[in-house]
This record gives sequence, C-alpha cells and structure tokens, in this order.
Amino acid sequence: MSYLGIGVSPGNVPVYHGNNLKVIDRRVRVTELVLRCVICGLAILGAVLIGTDSQVKVIFSIEKIAKFTDMKALVFLVIANGLAAAYSLVQVLRCILSMIRGSVLFNKPLAWAIFSGDQLMAYLTLVAVAAAAQSAVFAKLGQTELQWMKICDMYGKFCNQVGEGIASSLIVSLSMIVLSGISAFSLFRLYGNNSKGKGNAR
Amino acid sequence: MSYLGIGVSPGNVPVYHGNNLKVIDRRVRVTELVLRCVICGLAILGAVLIGTDSQVKVIFSIEKIAKFTDMKALVFLVIANGLAAAYSLVQVLRCILSMIRGSVLFNKPLAWAIFSGDQLMAYLTLVAVAAAAQSAVFAKLGQTELQWMKICDMYGKFCNQVGEGIASSLIVSLSMIVLSGISAFSLFRLYGNNSKGKGNAR
Repeated sequence: MSYLGIGVSPGNVPVYHGNNLKVIDRRVRVTELVLRCVICGLAILGAVLIGTDSQVKVIFSIEKIAKFTDMKALVFLVIANGLAAAYSLVQVLRCILSMIRGSVLFNKPLAWAIFSGDQLMAYLTLVAVAAAAQSAVFAKLGQTELQWMKICDMYGKFCNQVGEGIASSLIVSLSMIVLSGISAFSLFRLYGNNSKGKGNAR
Repeated sequence: MSYLGIGVSPGNVPVYHGNNLKVIDRRVRVTELVLRCVICGLAILGAVLIGTDSQVKVIFSIEKIAKFTDMKALVFLVIANGLAAAYSLVQVLRCILSMIRGSVLFNKPLAWAIFSGDQLMAYLTLVAVAAAAQSAVFAKLGQTELQWMKICDMYGKFCNQVGEGIASSLIVSLSMIVLSGISAFSLFRLYGNNSKGKGNAR
C-alpha cells in the first residue's frame, strides 16, 4: 500500500485524468458533430418546404394564391431556419477542424462564444416554431369566437406542406436545446472548483 | 522569494480557493434569490392580469363578452405563469434554506434537478409567451389575406390588459433564461477537469 502511495505522485494525476477527459470529450464531440449536421440538414429542409410552398385555388373564376408570405410567422420561421442552417454549417466546420487538430476546448472566450451562440439559436428557433405553430392552429381550426375562419379546408396541400416544415423545424429546435446543454457543459466545467483546474483552463 | 515559495505549500491552496469560491457562490445565490422572487411576483401578476381580463360590448342590443378563454394561447400563458410562480416559490424556499444553513451546492442529483427544472420552465414560459404574442399580433393587426379581422379596435381595454400581461410574462421568461444559465453553471462546474474537484463534488 505504501508503495502505491509513494508511486502515485501528484504529477501522475493529470495524466490519468487527461485520458479520462479525452474519452468524455470524444463522445461529447461526436454527439455535437452529429447533432449539428442533423440541424443543418433539417433546417434547410424546413426552410425549403415552407419557402417553396404555394397553392392556387380558383373560386368563382377568381384565382387565389396561398403563399407562405401571407403569414408573417412563416416568414420568421424560414429566416430562423436559414440562420440555424448557416450557424450550424460554421459550427460543423469548427468541430471537424478541432477533431483533425485533436485539440480539447480549454479556451474560455471560444467556449463562451459557442455557448452564447447555441443558447441564442435554441431560443430563436423555439420562438419561431411556437409562433408558426400557433398560426397553424388558427389556420387549421379557426377561432369561431373571433370569426377567424379556418383556411386549411380550402388550401389542404399548402397546409400539409407547412405542417411538415414546422415538424422539421421542431426537431431543429429540440436538437439546438440539447446542443446548448452540451456547450453549457463544455463551458462551465472550465470553472471547476479547484485552483489547478482554473490554471489549466485559462 | 524563496521564503514565499516554501511558505505556499499545496495545503494552503484549497483554503484560499475555498474563500474565493464562497464569494462567487454568495453572489450567485443572491442573484438567484432575487431573480426567483422577481419571477414569482411577475408570474402571478401576469396570470392575474390575463385571467381577470374581460370586456363587455353591446352591438345592436346584443351583448358580447371578450374573455381570455376565447383564445387558447392566453389560457396556456395563464397556466404557464401559474406553474412558473409555484415552481419559483418552492425554489425561493430552497434558496433561503440553503442560505440559512450556509451550505454550498455540491450535490450532483440536486444540481441536476434544479438545472432540469429551470431549463424546462425557461422553454415553457418562452413558448407560451411566443404563442400568446403571435395571437396578440393577429388580434391587433388582423390578417387581411386570410380575412381575419382585427378585434382590438372593438375591445381596446381588453387588448391593453392582455398586452400588459404578456409584457409581464416576457420578463418572467427572460429571467428564467438567465436563471437556467446560473443553474447550468452551478451544475457543470461540479464536473471541473481535475480528479480533486471530482472527489469534492460527489
């Protein structure tokens, strides 16, 4: 026992812990990369589904066109999806770069930037989905008390495609929420409660 | 110089750091307590403002009443505010208890529970505010393309009070976002990158 006690000098601890940290870090980075790729793909899908959606209806020889621009919430959702896709693309490149270089995130300003960006995108996409979903509910069910009539009976194909776009965007925002948890972990573990850890982290 | 070098033995470091941690911890806890009290108060205010709102209008001798239950998004916002108020009250009691006992949060399951609760409430209140705000925009501006008429010209007092309730709820959700950042910090710093820190944290 005493041999072990002498053998394990303070100098060995960071080496052991470094390996342990690498395993956790690799898992976190792979999850992060997969999620960011999923977000990028689904955000583009959502934006395209809603942005290209339109339906023409002829009522008493008058042509009426339903477009996503008729509803501000859908325009907002397309913009939010576009931003999420662009942001995720940049982050995917960063993830790949840091994986190639094999570097572990110990840079506080960068960790703060990623954390802030992820938080912002998570809340932005969620707000956009909530507003679009509320509009979709009005369009689907109407609001008889306020004499707002349902329009999905008339524009069925249009409404279905919007629904698919909102579903895709919902997965984007849920993935962003998980990612913002991961980046919070990556940031705040740098503030671990020991002076040695703080020294390494800077 | 050499005296200083000898004087600062590894044994002194945790003591110094313990004091440093206490200062940070006290500030975090005071901020947390203030925010939770603000949330509790404003969530109750928002729920009461919207929940008690109604306006009677006589049109061609027919009495029409506008109530918050006419709009599902407002009912959802009242429920979300009620949940936020109840949750914050419990958390305020926990904060006061931990301040009286002078204990520092080193309990991982508790930190995980607080983190999860705060995240959930932040996203819930934000979604409720977004949906209610979208409904309010339709009520205020109408949507001429869909022949949804604006109703705030008719029920001005009702709409103003709903607006105040939504503003109050917006502050609640923004405060919840800040709080969820604080609880993420409190949780993930327990996963600091050193074996000593991990030992303390368990």
